[in-house]
Amino acid sequence: MQIAIVLYKNFTTLDAVGPYEILASLPGAETVFVAEQTGPVLNDRGQVSIVATKSFAEVPRPDIVVVPGGPGEADQLENKALLDWLRAVDATTTWTTSVCTGSLALAAAGLLKGRRAASHWLALETLAGLGVEATGERVVFDGKYVTAAGVSSGIDMGLTLAGKIAGDRVAQAIQLMTEYDPQPPYDAGSPDKAPADLVEQMRTRSRS
Amino acid sequence: MQIAIVLYKNFTTLDAVGPYEILASLPGAETVFVAEQTGPVLNDRGQVSIVATKSFAEVPRPDIVVVPGGPGEADQLENKALLDWLRAVDATTTWTTSVCTGSLALAAAGLLKGRRAASHWLALETLAGLGVEATGERVVFDGKYVTAAGVSSGIDMGLTLAGKIAGDRVAQAIQLMTEYDPQPPYDAGSPDKAPADLVEQMRTRSRS
Repeated sequence: MQIAIVLYKNFTTLDAVGPYEILASLPGAETVFVAEQTGPVLNDRGQVSIVATKSFAEVPRPDIVVVPGGPGEADQLENKALLDWLRAVDATTTWTTSVCTGSLALAAAGLLKGRRAASHWLALETLAGLGVEATGERVVFDGKYVTAAGVSSGIDMGLTLAGKIAGDRVAQAIQLMTEYDPQPPYDAGSPDKAPADLVEQMRTRSRS
Repeated sequence: MQIAIVLYKNFTTLDAVGPYEILASLPGAETVFVAEQTGPVLNDRGQVSIVATKSFAEVPRPDIVVVPGGPGEADQLENKALLDWLRAVDATTTWTTSVCTGSLALAAAGLLKGRRAASHWLALETLAGLGVEATGERVVFDGKYVTAAGVSSGIDMGLTLAGKIAGDRVAQAIQLMTEYDPQPPYDAGSPDKAPADLVEQMRTRSRS
């Protein structure tokens, strides 16, 4: 079972690493970090690179694809090399997945037409504009397409998918070993729960 | 405010990236990935490298240090270059922090003597053996030392610390933008909550 975690310039680090840490624990998993070209790929803050060990050309038939998001929507929507590769490999994947605005790439590749899908809460309008039934849910399964909401939701996506693939017991073992017993000090992790003026402030900032 | 995320061979990726994603969002933060030498540092599964952009010698006075863990305790306990650097920079840090078995390195460096600290649940005995009051809590503050439990707990650590540094409003904004509204599909994320036989199985496996 080959799991391809996609990297592209300006990706958000936790989007990729959250599901990686969970899914790479699956029995029989071979996990590869893949990008247009091998080598270091710089993240959205320009501060850290993760090394892609395979190029798109070297990974023609992954079983699972994970597309992380990033703050610049053009990086997903206009990334021809990424979109072409996604279309090609999706023909044979078992699961095609995304975190955060990674779903914009899946949608731009034409893979989510008429399907339900999640994204970062600030990207739901853009996602809907691509002919997708965009929803604010945290993890959305629609056929073999699994999409998650913003950044940290990739951990929940990974764990849910791990359970579907390998059963509850294996997924629980992964949860236990990664000690995923979240205890956030605030309850502001979604636009429904955060203070309304903070939500508005972030929405305004994202438009500027 | 310089935040140094430490890398060393066999580190666990999410241990480093969880707090990175949170703390790098702090206003005025300059985040660097630092290791004994610059260049790619391979993770615990040998699958992925994160690039260290600075060497220990180039980061002599970070304000915040984050030490991730990894599954091989020798990597923390016998890593002389790491321990020497931790001792040196701790003299001037505002916060010295760890995730998972990163606290073993802090303890081995002599920084946690007589203090309360967290670690991965499977490493608490080892931590206690180093003269530390080891606790199964998820995030532990003792003076300027902030230690977290296993792997994913670094996100809670980062967010709690963000609140102390920049106030609740800023921390809530970071939680909202990373959409950290956890919804794990199971409740097996700590040894108190996971099925008892699964906990025993993992304990036995960790000793073999």
